[in-house]
Amino acid sequence: MAVSLGELAVRFGCELRGDPDVQVDHVATLAHADSRSLAFLANSRYRQQLAATGAAAVVVDEASAADCRTAALVCRNPHATYARIAAVLHPLPAAPPGTHPSAVIAPGARVDATAHVGALSVVGDGAVVGPRAFVGPQCVVEEGATLAEDVRLTARVTVCRKVQIGARTTVQPGAVIGGDGFGFAQEGGRWIKVPQAGTVRIGPDVEIGANTTIDRGAIEDTVIEEGVKLDNLIMIAHNVRVGAHSALAACVGVSGSTTIGRRCMIGGQVGIGGHLTIADDVIITGCTMVSHSVPRPGVYSGGIPLEEAHVWRRLVARFKRIDSLATRLKALERHGAGGPDQEE
Amino acid sequence: MAVSLGELAVRFGCELRGDPDVQVDHVATLAHADSRSLAFLANSRYRQQLAATGAAAVVVDEASAADCRTAALVCRNPHATYARIAAVLHPLPAAPPGTHPSAVIAPGARVDATAHVGALSVVGDGAVVGPRAFVGPQCVVEEGATLAEDVRLTARVTVCRKVQIGARTTVQPGAVIGGDGFGFAQEGGRWIKVPQAGTVRIGPDVEIGANTTIDRGAIEDTVIEEGVKLDNLIMIAHNVRVGAHSALAACVGVSGSTTIGRRCMIGGQVGIGGHLTIADDVIITGCTMVSHSVPRPGVYSGGIPLEEAHVWRRLVARFKRIDSLATRLKALERHGAGGPDQEE
Amino acid sequence: MAVSLGELAVRFGCELRGDPDVQVDHVATLAHADSRSLAFLANSRYRQQLAATGAAAVVVDEASAADCRTAALVCRNPHATYARIAAVLHPLPAAPPGTHPSAVIAPGARVDATAHVGALSVVGDGAVVGPRAFVGPQCVVEEGATLAEDVRLTARVTVCRKVQIGARTTVQPGAVIGGDGFGFAQEGGRWIKVPQAGTVRIGPDVEIGANTTIDRGAIEDTVIEEGVKLDNLIMIAHNVRVGAHSALAACVGVSGSTTIGRRCMIGGQVGIGGHLTIADDVIITGCTMVSHSVPRPGVYSGGIPLEEAHVWRRLVARFKRIDSLATRLKALERHGAGGPDQEE
Repeated sequence: MAVSLGELAVRFGCELRGDPDVQVDHVATLAHADSRSLAFLANSRYRQQLAATGAAAVVVDEASAADCRTAALVCRNPHATYARIAAVLHPLPAAPPGTHPSAVIAPGARVDATAHVGALSVVGDGAVVGPRAFVGPQCVVEEGATLAEDVRLTARVTVCRKVQIGARTTVQPGAVIGGDGFGFAQEGGRWIKVPQAGTVRIGPDVEIGANTTIDRGAIEDTVIEEGVKLDNLIMIAHNVRVGAHSALAACVGVSGSTTIGRRCMIGGQVGIGGHLTIADDVIITGCTMVSHSVPRPGVYSGGIPLEEAHVWRRLVARFKRIDSLATRLKALERHGAGGPDQEE
Repeated sequence: MAVSLGELAVRFGCELRGDPDVQVDHVATLAHADSRSLAFLANSRYRQQLAATGAAAVVVDEASAADCRTAALVCRNPHATYARIAAVLHPLPAAPPGTHPSAVIAPGARVDATAHVGALSVVGDGAVVGPRAFVGPQCVVEEGATLAEDVRLTARVTVCRKVQIGARTTVQPGAVIGGDGFGFAQEGGRWIKVPQAGTVRIGPDVEIGANTTIDRGAIEDTVIEEGVKLDNLIMIAHNVRVGAHSALAACVGVSGSTTIGRRCMIGGQVGIGGHLTIADDVIITGCTMVSHSVPRPGVYSGGIPLEEAHVWRRLVARFKRIDSLATRLKALERHGAGGPDQEE
Repeated sequence: MAVSLGELAVRFGCELRGDPDVQVDHVATLAHADSRSLAFLANSRYRQQLAATGAAAVVVDEASAADCRTAALVCRNPHATYARIAAVLHPLPAAPPGTHPSAVIAPGARVDATAHVGALSVVGDGAVVGPRAFVGPQCVVEEGATLAEDVRLTARVTVCRKVQIGARTTVQPGAVIGGDGFGFAQEGGRWIKVPQAGTVRIGPDVEIGANTTIDRGAIEDTVIEEGVKLDNLIMIAHNVRVGAHSALAACVGVSGSTTIGRRCMIGGQVGIGGHLTIADDVIITGCTMVSHSVPRPGVYSGGIPLEEAHVWRRLVARFKRIDSLATRLKALERHGAGGPDQEE
């Protein structure tokens, strides 16, 4: 979709330095842009690319605008402004209101007249599909589930019974919301399934990544608050609560009944134990094991960067004898050096 | 569904302390229960909540019953008894026998008259759907696959060709059972796919979590024995065997041809290498790397808890120089202190 | 399917030692073979099994052929030859050309007359399904996606809009190709979605495992080059490039904009950070955290094998005080032994 720089400047509150009649119709990176492209600079690391870019215009902040040889859309937060403009240039495919004839809608379901239900989707009894909601192809919305206005289930999403999804929340393909939590009682060496009587409540403006799973609560509900962003292949166990505006990267696992605060950022493959509390504004870097609560904001880590295998093997061997190291050091401190070698 | 305490006591073998005519119709936590709620106490950590609970009745053991100010259903294993009662109070949605008209059943498939096949599911040629089995919406049961009696595929489950699933086994949405194992032969810098000629055999009373994948065997079968519980997003590679009544938490990966014993408990995100043998009754805590066999029962660990990032960076830096520490310690032991600093 | 050893020898360029008229009709392991079985020996660890095998014939190399008491198909690369023969003995179920009547094909889609589109699949507007392509049941091929010749989507695969998949590539069930990348701009404590305007380009002869997710690019495309093999439950973030013939084991996560070289082998559960470059011919063992680029070929590791829990707890406690160990060692080196104990 083609738009003039002048229109973009007005619509998104930028100061335009350049010809307002120039048109752009797609986004591009600074390095690969052409005369119909809009690019942006949000990371000063790429600032030197401004000189050589072929873009029609670049979204930049005041500090970098001077280096911009092309037209500039100057604003305070180039990344956010870029995001909004990109949504105009690259709109999602149109989804006309109505239900595809191949979809299976239970008689007791309520699908708003402005909603779209795609091919081969299933909407169960008592389920509600709200105004302008988009249910892509092959989704399942089970009995009693509720999709608020403008919810977007892209394709092949499973929303289990009674799950509630807030306005404007987007779910990527393959996600499962409201599968049974992993609850079993032990009896005589066997496991007895504990019915998972709660459900999942998801706030507005949430994003849920592909093949991520969010389990329903055992008694009370699993809760994802407003504005939370979950990447792909994340596991949210039963009765977890993720606080508003927190973002979790891919492959994170959060065990049952843990509460994550607001505005947290959790790196990829982090594993978080059960029944813990993570404070607001906690940042945890990738591959960290979280086995105790984190009561204070801050940045936390627990991963050890790789080494060449032969070096690593030696480090591990030393680590496994660290107890001996400590004991020998203490002996030296007490009795002085020159004693017998205790270890070869 | 409402049931009287008297009926519950008789049906589940509890001693009732309280009015047998009081009715309960849902489960609740001690903290949030009301006069129609049944709660339970299985963890003495929550014992003090007994005093304030608004529950109609609590399932407790003898030791805690004295602290219970409400009606009590006294039994030896409150968690297991609670699980059974909860299944009565919160039954799954009814699934009438029969096949939804939108399902696609191959002419050579055998679907028992008492089974339920949901909307838009596919049952392939030669597949068998046993008595009272539940195939939810959008499942695929490929050619020659067998579902024994009372199997429950909740929704959108994929059961690949010839896979066998035992009685009463439940599979959560998105699980893939019988995808090809990851088998390739190398030849001249390229990979040649090795046909995966085995299948997957799953015992009775197994639970398989959402988006978990269990690969078919390369030649012989991948086997999940009776009573195994698998959480979400688990990877079971080809030719793995998981012993009866073992439980694996979410995000565990088990590499090819490994055998896990009976009654094991594997924590979240544990990674288990290939061609290993884990004994019966092994417990492995979360985030552990298992790179060698575990021949004896016991509890095993391998994860390091997080620290504040600046502390962690210093620990890692020290760890990476642990070899120097050991060398310098040995030098001191041999030659005494006071030598030249070898490292700043 | 039964084939004579003579025919196999001719067709796959083996030297046959044994009766060319003997027929085999399935593959088996050396240990469990019968007189209709073909087995193979590729790992000298199993060489002593040759003596006792009941197989009709074994695929072996010259060095092991002498130990073979049964018929032998002698060749240079037994694993690769076995793979090719197994594909003959265990062909995939036939997939007749044509579209199942329950599939939903948009008017603007182009499905080759030789392709198979299975039950309840959806092919969107402008999508192309190439010659002899197999689209199994319940797949979604969105608008503008392209499947080249002989692509195989086994079942329930999601191929999002404009994704391109190369010839002969196979995708296992549940995989999601082209979901939105995890891109958000921060503004005032909230996240604004950055439209993911790129797509995914997958080369020929790629394998993609069950429930693996490959996100579409933010601006440019995510690229999987020819011959790459991806196991199950892998996360490939936006704008990643995986070089030709690399193989990634299950549960690996690769963060955004990282480039992995050619012929790399990445072990299970490895986590790779964003914006990194991994050289060609890099091997990374399982459970390793990759937080910096790897500029040179080689073998790299970062996981610590498990210990019994009580041993491990002690190691971790020592590790967490490694700083004190280093400080005390330095003090000893400077001032000699016999000073005050600084730590109990």
